[in-house]
Amino acid sequence: MDFAPDARTTELTEQVRTFLHERVLPAEPVLDAQLAAAPEAWTFRPVVDELRSAARAQGLWNLFLPAGGPTAPYGAGLTNLQYAPLAELTGWSTRLAPVAFNCAAPDTGNMELLAHFGTPEQRERWLAPLLDARIRSAFSMTEPDVASSDATQIGTRIRRDGDDLVISGRKWWSTGAMSPDAQLLIVMGKTDPDAPRHRQQSMVLVPRDTPGVTIVRPLTVFGYDDRDHGGHAEIVFDDVRVPASSMLGGAGEGFALAQARLGPGRIHHCMRAIGTAERALALAGERARSRVAFGRPLADQGVVREWVANARVELESLRLLVLKTAWLMDTVGNRAAMTEIQAIKIAVPRAVQTILDRVIQIFGAAGVSGDQPLAEMFAGARSLRLADGPDEVHLSSLGKAQLRAPR
Amino acid sequence: MDFAPDARTTELTEQVRTFLHERVLPAEPVLDAQLAAAPEAWTFRPVVDELRSAARAQGLWNLFLPAGGPTAPYGAGLTNLQYAPLAELTGWSTRLAPVAFNCAAPDTGNMELLAHFGTPEQRERWLAPLLDARIRSAFSMTEPDVASSDATQIGTRIRRDGDDLVISGRKWWSTGAMSPDAQLLIVMGKTDPDAPRHRQQSMVLVPRDTPGVTIVRPLTVFGYDDRDHGGHAEIVFDDVRVPASSMLGGAGEGFALAQARLGPGRIHHCMRAIGTAERALALAGERARSRVAFGRPLADQGVVREWVANARVELESLRLLVLKTAWLMDTVGNRAAMTEIQAIKIAVPRAVQTILDRVIQIFGAAGVSGDQPLAEMFAGARSLRLADGPDEVHLSSLGKAQLRAPR
Amino acid sequence: MDFAPDARTTELTEQVRTFLHERVLPAEPVLDAQLAAAPEAWTFRPVVDELRSAARAQGLWNLFLPAGGPTAPYGAGLTNLQYAPLAELTGWSTRLAPVAFNCAAPDTGNMELLAHFGTPEQRERWLAPLLDARIRSAFSMTEPDVASSDATQIGTRIRRDGDDLVISGRKWWSTGAMSPDAQLLIVMGKTDPDAPRHRQQSMVLVPRDTPGVTIVRPLTVFGYDDRDHGGHAEIVFDDVRVPASSMLGGAGEGFALAQARLGPGRIHHCMRAIGTAERALALAGERARSRVAFGRPLADQGVVREWVANARVELESLRLLVLKTAWLMDTVGNRAAMTEIQAIKIAVPRAVQTILDRVIQIFGAAGVSGDQPLAEMFAGARSLRLADGPDEVHLSSLGKAQLRAPR
Amino acid sequence: MDFAPDARTTELTEQVRTFLHERVLPAEPVLDAQLAAAPEAWTFRPVVDELRSAARAQGLWNLFLPAGGPTAPYGAGLTNLQYAPLAELTGWSTRLAPVAFNCAAPDTGNMELLAHFGTPEQRERWLAPLLDARIRSAFSMTEPDVASSDATQIGTRIRRDGDDLVISGRKWWSTGAMSPDAQLLIVMGKTDPDAPRHRQQSMVLVPRDTPGVTIVRPLTVFGYDDRDHGGHAEIVFDDVRVPASSMLGGAGEGFALAQARLGPGRIHHCMRAIGTAERALALAGERARSRVAFGRPLADQGVVREWVANARVELESLRLLVLKTAWLMDTVGNRAAMTEIQAIKIAVPRAVQTILDRVIQIFGAAGVSGDQPLAEMFAGARSLRLADGPDEVHLSSLGKAQLRAPR
Repeated sequence: MDFAPDARTTELTEQVRTFLHERVLPAEPVLDAQLAAAPEAWTFRPVVDELRSAARAQGLWNLFLPAGGPTAPYGAGLTNLQYAPLAELTGWSTRLAPVAFNCAAPDTGNMELLAHFGTPEQRERWLAPLLDARIRSAFSMTEPDVASSDATQIGTRIRRDGDDLVISGRKWWSTGAMSPDAQLLIVMGKTDPDAPRHRQQSMVLVPRDTPGVTIVRPLTVFGYDDRDHGGHAEIVFDDVRVPASSMLGGAGEGFALAQARLGPGRIHHCMRAIGTAERALALAGERARSRVAFGRPLADQGVVREWVANARVELESLRLLVLKTAWLMDTVGNRAAMTEIQAIKIAVPRAVQTILDRVIQIFGAAGVSGDQPLAEMFAGARSLRLADGPDEVHLSSLGKAQLRAPR
Repeated sequence: MDFAPDARTTELTEQVRTFLHERVLPAEPVLDAQLAAAPEAWTFRPVVDELRSAARAQGLWNLFLPAGGPTAPYGAGLTNLQYAPLAELTGWSTRLAPVAFNCAAPDTGNMELLAHFGTPEQRERWLAPLLDARIRSAFSMTEPDVASSDATQIGTRIRRDGDDLVISGRKWWSTGAMSPDAQLLIVMGKTDPDAPRHRQQSMVLVPRDTPGVTIVRPLTVFGYDDRDHGGHAEIVFDDVRVPASSMLGGAGEGFALAQARLGPGRIHHCMRAIGTAERALALAGERARSRVAFGRPLADQGVVREWVANARVELESLRLLVLKTAWLMDTVGNRAAMTEIQAIKIAVPRAVQTILDRVIQIFGAAGVSGDQPLAEMFAGARSLRLADGPDEVHLSSLGKAQLRAPR
Repeated sequence: MDFAPDARTTELTEQVRTFLHERVLPAEPVLDAQLAAAPEAWTFRPVVDELRSAARAQGLWNLFLPAGGPTAPYGAGLTNLQYAPLAELTGWSTRLAPVAFNCAAPDTGNMELLAHFGTPEQRERWLAPLLDARIRSAFSMTEPDVASSDATQIGTRIRRDGDDLVISGRKWWSTGAMSPDAQLLIVMGKTDPDAPRHRQQSMVLVPRDTPGVTIVRPLTVFGYDDRDHGGHAEIVFDDVRVPASSMLGGAGEGFALAQARLGPGRIHHCMRAIGTAERALALAGERARSRVAFGRPLADQGVVREWVANARVELESLRLLVLKTAWLMDTVGNRAAMTEIQAIKIAVPRAVQTILDRVIQIFGAAGVSGDQPLAEMFAGARSLRLADGPDEVHLSSLGKAQLRAPR
Repeated sequence: MDFAPDARTTELTEQVRTFLHERVLPAEPVLDAQLAAAPEAWTFRPVVDELRSAARAQGLWNLFLPAGGPTAPYGAGLTNLQYAPLAELTGWSTRLAPVAFNCAAPDTGNMELLAHFGTPEQRERWLAPLLDARIRSAFSMTEPDVASSDATQIGTRIRRDGDDLVISGRKWWSTGAMSPDAQLLIVMGKTDPDAPRHRQQSMVLVPRDTPGVTIVRPLTVFGYDDRDHGGHAEIVFDDVRVPASSMLGGAGEGFALAQARLGPGRIHHCMRAIGTAERALALAGERARSRVAFGRPLADQGVVREWVANARVELESLRLLVLKTAWLMDTVGNRAAMTEIQAIKIAVPRAVQTILDRVIQIFGAAGVSGDQPLAEMFAGARSLRLADGPDEVHLSSLGKAQLRAPR
């Protein structure tokens, strides 16, 4: 249980921090200007390419791919524990930093899936361009008609027809899929509704331009369409036909693949959320020192101090819990880290939501506006409490496990 | 302390409820379609005019203007207590219902100010068309550069120059002012920075098309631009010259006018917020009965039941507190109701925010999307915690008063 | 929905308030001294008799017994709404005030049961001396072996044997029953375990000195044994034989009787709890004005102000909810007021617990000690969250009802 | 930042765990019986001596004294990080386990002070018997008349008179001092009220039987008098005269000594509190599995699961924060660990209080009674939020530091 950053982590952290402050944060207003100039586009804006080139030139690329196992050849060779503080730093600018380092969801999880379970042909066709950021991808699991955290309810069907797989169903929240850059859709559906509960599902690699794929509409998160990175799409799959070789892993392995994808994803999400909260606190400090009300700076007011103190306590303890989870995943594997993976998924987003709510309050009306990044951060943190299943599913599962009789 | 609805209130409540369910709620998708058809406009869409005509034909018009005193000639002649349940019903659809009955902020507060403090000429020029909904108006008090809840910090200056007043300053969150329909801006500024603390400010009636008035840009609230009712504008006043007769009330009365404006406004805001929460709970019920997860409808799950029970308890107790406040305002006046006015301002929006947060959670990802009204409701409730000064200002003031030695 | 105190309520409130401040509060140290002088006794101390005589002489006696129906002949003839503010005042000193006015649980509920359901003989034997405070009584429902909020689980058996009823079982939390003054035990047990769910239980009047009744031991609440009013007893009933005429109401009516007993009891509990919180706030004010830390009185510190403001908001809104509940009980009956009765049972004790927790914090270590009444108040409020079933049972029931489809 | 238990810690943890389950927990009912047999005594009961002998025979003795520096010769030679999990285990039975291992407050802090700052004579006279548990000690800092967290307000005066020091003042919450075993009182007072703020105070070693020392009375905590380990005394020092050589450290060093005492004390308190919560959760599990309400065990009810899940998340994250704090103290010293020491002092007791509150709720009325250890645990956790200064002092200080401009 040694969480201390080693030499490589320390070095990379400094490199990423410098890049963040010198390149990424100054690029935010550039992004805003480019968004205003092409308000209709769903693709990345030019500034992203510049950041990517710069980051890649410094070796800050594909940092997220774990050191051991099948992902080893492709990434920077970091453990989850080594990557965690880097992910935290990218949370300071979730619109630009993750994508600058080619460490943005959902590509990250999709690349992991391809590295772990893809055939050589699948890796050649999809993993290689993703690693180069030449294309993007989306992950189509959630469905509008069912509580998708309960995988047994998934309605999309994948049936074998000769050498083909034929997919029918409706998905939504396929993040990034509004953009034509997202050439690959990884689609979860049922191949065998009569199999045991967790052997009914499979995953298929579907090119976005396959006949029968209809991008129905974009969704919004609060009032944001997240247009700068491909938005969130509702997609209909209407007898979409792909070769049988497009299945990822074996038939019936979809649930297991989805679970495998979750562990590292939660580390990333949680560390980024912590980074987001840290930036909010830094902003809160500036504001509280400079803003005067009723004769005193906000920083001198007891309630503001108490909020900030509580935020610090929360972040310090939760960061340690995420680091421990990363360390467990590195040393004993995702399965043995299940309690911790659930714990951080529950605890971090809600803590960050509360912190952001209070920082917004410190900023007054500016806090809910587009002049500060806080409201958009809030929308992101709020959404995390629903992504990969609502908090309550995980609380219930964790509580149930805790209440089992000790062996 | 009799809160029971009298015969007239009961009748009007039924009328408004019917109108809400038969006309307003079905008009929401129409509004969405009209918004999509003219995405650039900041004005009301055609559906609003239809609703207004229908409501006015039924006598459901200007219901908010209090029965007694200077407002008596203009409105429906209801007391605050009589109007409160009607305001609650309009909270079910804040985008359409308040405006349908010509009961939408900021026009409501502005009409009250004009009725109370306007000269006959001012009432003729501005109040009359507002009562007819021929024009709209905005209220320019908040400034980007200072904590505006502390009125002594207001930076806008109003100086006398011969027969004119000359206004210079920067305002924001002038709701509605993006629309050219908002022909009137009521502007708060300092006429005498050396006067006693609460006698420095004055209010001036400024036509939006006066030279020197620049509508700088729209602001967003959690990504929403509230374009359908004129958005929220940042406005620069650069040596804006209006006749001295444009002052509302006397010089130095601006603070007192602002305070007078607040009391009824808080009743309205709070009752609407309670109505919003009631609609959210109704939606939550439908969802929880129909949505199945892990073999049971959400409505059978203990945590969901507990949320809904807590919401019911909160709403029942807070509604009574708002009604009591309305009753106090009707019987002993705004000043004597100060504790209660502060109390509802603090308690209602945060309770409604919590309720909405949980209903979003019940809806899963649909809850944060535009498919449900919840996220936009949340943005509204969240903003209320900042409007008219952040909660903390009111908590501090109320706590200070409570801690004074008893006489 | 008229909660305003009428003339009689106003007069009685003043009378009770005066009695509270002039007689009851000064008697608290006298009680402490008398407790110290006779530490072993479980009976009321002499000061209680003095207070009772004084109160009765002023007509402040049996105020709790509702005006209408079978209780009318016995009490002061007040409605629940009229009694509520008096009950609140008694909450300032729960150790002395309720008993001074012969308005202390569990006698209150027991007297109501006897008035409503007792035969003339039962009323003669038990109600008369209770009304005179010549004896006391206890209520034996809760059992150590089962979750007693689920009445179907009650283990005590009452079987008919000729002209007798024979009772066997184990009860606890029979408040007051450590004292020999509690001559009457009202015992709930099952007469017919095979009857429908809510027709299995009956209530029997059992003299405390009946053979087979064993007072096993006193229980404590936190570290308090509540010795000054008879403590809380565990009691074994071992083939306790009473005449069949000792049944209260009919066989199978025990559950209905218990429910009938709850409604008014909750009004009393909740109003007293609000009174307790008001006293705590009054104490907090004195402390916060006089105690200086780090150069300023606590009353000038933002966090303390915020606590007090929140307490005021909570108490104002919850008091209204209790008054509405009382008014509903008076006008439409307990059954129609079910939602509100549950709501106050849930909301008031937990709000008061939170308020007391914060007032303790304002007092520092003195707050948890016996030098202030706060810790004992806290123990009382904490226990209310378990009395008559834990909060969660009521939350679940209320939530379930709310989630039912609207008719 | 390596928190993993090393071989010695693992071994000791197993040894302590075994001792806890085989010796300490079974001794709790023995203690209760011995308390009942001699209800007046303030001294340790015989069972404590038996446990001490057994523990000492196993080398489980004085485990708390840090390995490095002046304390090295006296204890088991553990670092704070090594001791932390042992302290956690003692929290399962705070009445018996800490004292069994001679690791109970306030002796622990007093022994540290003596080891660090005592002269050879002072160590000979007081430290040696304390290390052997032949005597006990108390720490007299808190005063009834001032907010003692603000050391500048301390009223006790220590004046030099020839070769003597003369002490006058009133102290309370001198834990353990009701017992004559507490032969040593360490008294904090002002030697120079005109010195700089934190140089006014000194500490003096005062034998409890010195003339002028009056043990006034015991204090209670939520009704508990903690009689089994010497209670909490109010003490008057009336011109108490001791030789000048009784001063601990130099004149004016009292504040610094008090600060030095706090760091390790907080680790101990927090780890014990975590252990207390773990025991409560273990009890909750047993209860929830066996207790049935409304047809299902409590363990199957969603709300109970959610409570337990949240408790687990909190404990996992807070334990890591305490371990990090211990590690910082070991590696960079108390001063550099100030933020973390404050953070755990704030976060752990309140989290444990909430957990205990919910476990009590799971137990129903049994939870507040003496049949379960929960209510007494609650009283302990609640008190921790006041010990060494109320939470708010630490929140304010931590928040202020956080809001300082970054260098």
